[in-house]
Amino acid sequence: MVRGLCRVYLRQGTGKGCQMRIDNLQYAKWSEKVFRQMREGGLDAVHVTVAYHENFRETVLNLEQWNRWFEAFPELIFKGQWASDVEHARATGRTAIFFGFQNPSPMEDDIGLVEILHTLGGRFMQLTYNNQSLLATGCYEAEDSGITRMGRQVIREMNRVGMVVDMSHSADRSTIEAAEISQRPIAITHANPHVWAPALRNKSDDVIRAVTQNGGMFGFSLYPHHLAGKSACTRAAFCEMIARAAERFGPECLGIGSDLCQDQPDSIVEWMRVGRWSKEIDYGEGSADAPGFPPMPEWFRDNRDFGGLAEGLRDVGMNPQEVAGIMGGNWHRFYAESFTPGS
Amino acid sequence: MVRGLCRVYLRQGTGKGCQMRIDNLQYAKWSEKVFRQMREGGLDAVHVTVAYHENFRETVLNLEQWNRWFEAFPELIFKGQWASDVEHARATGRTAIFFGFQNPSPMEDDIGLVEILHTLGGRFMQLTYNNQSLLATGCYEAEDSGITRMGRQVIREMNRVGMVVDMSHSADRSTIEAAEISQRPIAITHANPHVWAPALRNKSDDVIRAVTQNGGMFGFSLYPHHLAGKSACTRAAFCEMIARAAERFGPECLGIGSDLCQDQPDSIVEWMRVGRWSKEIDYGEGSADAPGFPPMPEWFRDNRDFGGLAEGLRDVGMNPQEVAGIMGGNWHRFYAESFTPGS
Repeated sequence: MVRGLCRVYLRQGTGKGCQMRIDNLQYAKWSEKVFRQMREGGLDAVHVTVAYHENFRETVLNLEQWNRWFEAFPELIFKGQWASDVEHARATGRTAIFFGFQNPSPMEDDIGLVEILHTLGGRFMQLTYNNQSLLATGCYEAEDSGITRMGRQVIREMNRVGMVVDMSHSADRSTIEAAEISQRPIAITHANPHVWAPALRNKSDDVIRAVTQNGGMFGFSLYPHHLAGKSACTRAAFCEMIARAAERFGPECLGIGSDLCQDQPDSIVEWMRVGRWSKEIDYGEGSADAPGFPPMPEWFRDNRDFGGLAEGLRDVGMNPQEVAGIMGGNWHRFYAESFTPGS
Repeated sequence: MVRGLCRVYLRQGTGKGCQMRIDNLQYAKWSEKVFRQMREGGLDAVHVTVAYHENFRETVLNLEQWNRWFEAFPELIFKGQWASDVEHARATGRTAIFFGFQNPSPMEDDIGLVEILHTLGGRFMQLTYNNQSLLATGCYEAEDSGITRMGRQVIREMNRVGMVVDMSHSADRSTIEAAEISQRPIAITHANPHVWAPALRNKSDDVIRAVTQNGGMFGFSLYPHHLAGKSACTRAAFCEMIARAAERFGPECLGIGSDLCQDQPDSIVEWMRVGRWSKEIDYGEGSADAPGFPPMPEWFRDNRDFGGLAEGLRDVGMNPQEVAGIMGGNWHRFYAESFTPGS
């Protein structure tokens, strides 16, 4: 319906105003400044990470902090729960904030917490961060043993309640198995094709195809370690990569998950990598020479530059409908299909 | 609107079918049997206790168990969140289950958990069980120091999110102060007038008046220790007591909160009394001779007998509108005024 509406607007030459904008992965150091920049960037919705290593109670503390921000800045942001909240955000000039977890740690060893977390607003959950979890194997493990016994049951429960299986940080076999086991489309919210930038976190075409061929979604990351040329990557190169991916996988399964970590101190990237699972430093996608957050490309400093991606996509020859889908329409459709309870 | 509708039905002589039925306090040993008896008793809604001494994580485990019951018995029960769910229950022939806590223990020392618990469905929270809490003084304490510093802030937060302050187990000064401090009507969900049965848990007329005079609610208990004559109390005596209370406080602020603890073993009443706060046995309203659950009056064995209260109230001369209000209409109005966020 929204896409149909867009088509009407586009014919009238008002495509820019109609374009829905969703960034499906951020973990900024949240502040009024960042929320105002979301508005400046015209973001209708942002999927924010609420937990990396936190257990259930710690995750709830993070949700409490979000409640305080919603109370403090009601003119800028509100809690998003359903696809219709994206439309409500557009109608009221605000940004809907959707919650997700980059690790199943918030559900601990308790399958009943899947529904509890969904009730609290959780809409995406990675079956792993970088390590083996109770559910699946992370992309930094030497061996990928696939989806575990508990993982199979948790996928079924996530399907039932309406929480999206996100395999962004998972290993290949686990990801492909998750796509097969899940009765509903799954997602890789933030990564890039490995053929373009051979980072460990980027995904082979086989993996991307497994996720996207049945209605799943792939979100492109702007985290410099995921970019060809890293911080020096140009907007043209990034958008060209998207256009090529659209040819291989279809434009309707693609969106943005910027992985924007704006204003975070370097201590946070260290915590992301080692949490409390290790006493040793682990540089992840960084190195001993460059342990911190790499600088963002100058054409994507923060939320204010989100709209520039549309221009970049048009410049590489994508048509207005394709651009509108990648900028947010595709995530919006996926939200509508994914967040309500299944059968 | 519902009461207006009732008047129409009553004029047509079909008052029984129109009568809304709400029991605003139960803590049965929940089972399919009990849920079926709720349907046999025509209960449109039941407010169930989810925590007595549980901390947040333990309360969530109880909520998870409720989710499993909702999944297992969707034709009998569903989770109630708003007043409209009572109407939905009537329309679909089921019972809406509303959650409450007989202790602020689920929110621990964390005011942010008030909103989290409301999001999870919590709609009533006692500021105390029998002991001093972080918020107020329980009715078994020797000294009642009133609402604490934290208690004042928690009342404000409960007002904001739409969680009802329930003072059923609190001491008198704390209760009267809570009624004064709260910007929204409060409740005593389950107790009886002390003038009728001088149990420690029953309430003086001054306390009942403080709670009900500004739109608050008082729910009558059928727990035998709260009854004149205990288990031998007759339905006529119980209903006569209600009729007299309606004269003193007005019929529109009265309802039922049966305190039904059906099928619970005696170990549960001991746990209710001592939790883990004491190493000593405490008999509460019982005694060394009668430490367990007293037998229910034979005219109120369980949910199936709920409808008989309407007959009893009519027998003591209450008019059909008054009876309909006490049987559920008054709680329904109170739900509509209380569960949505305030300003």
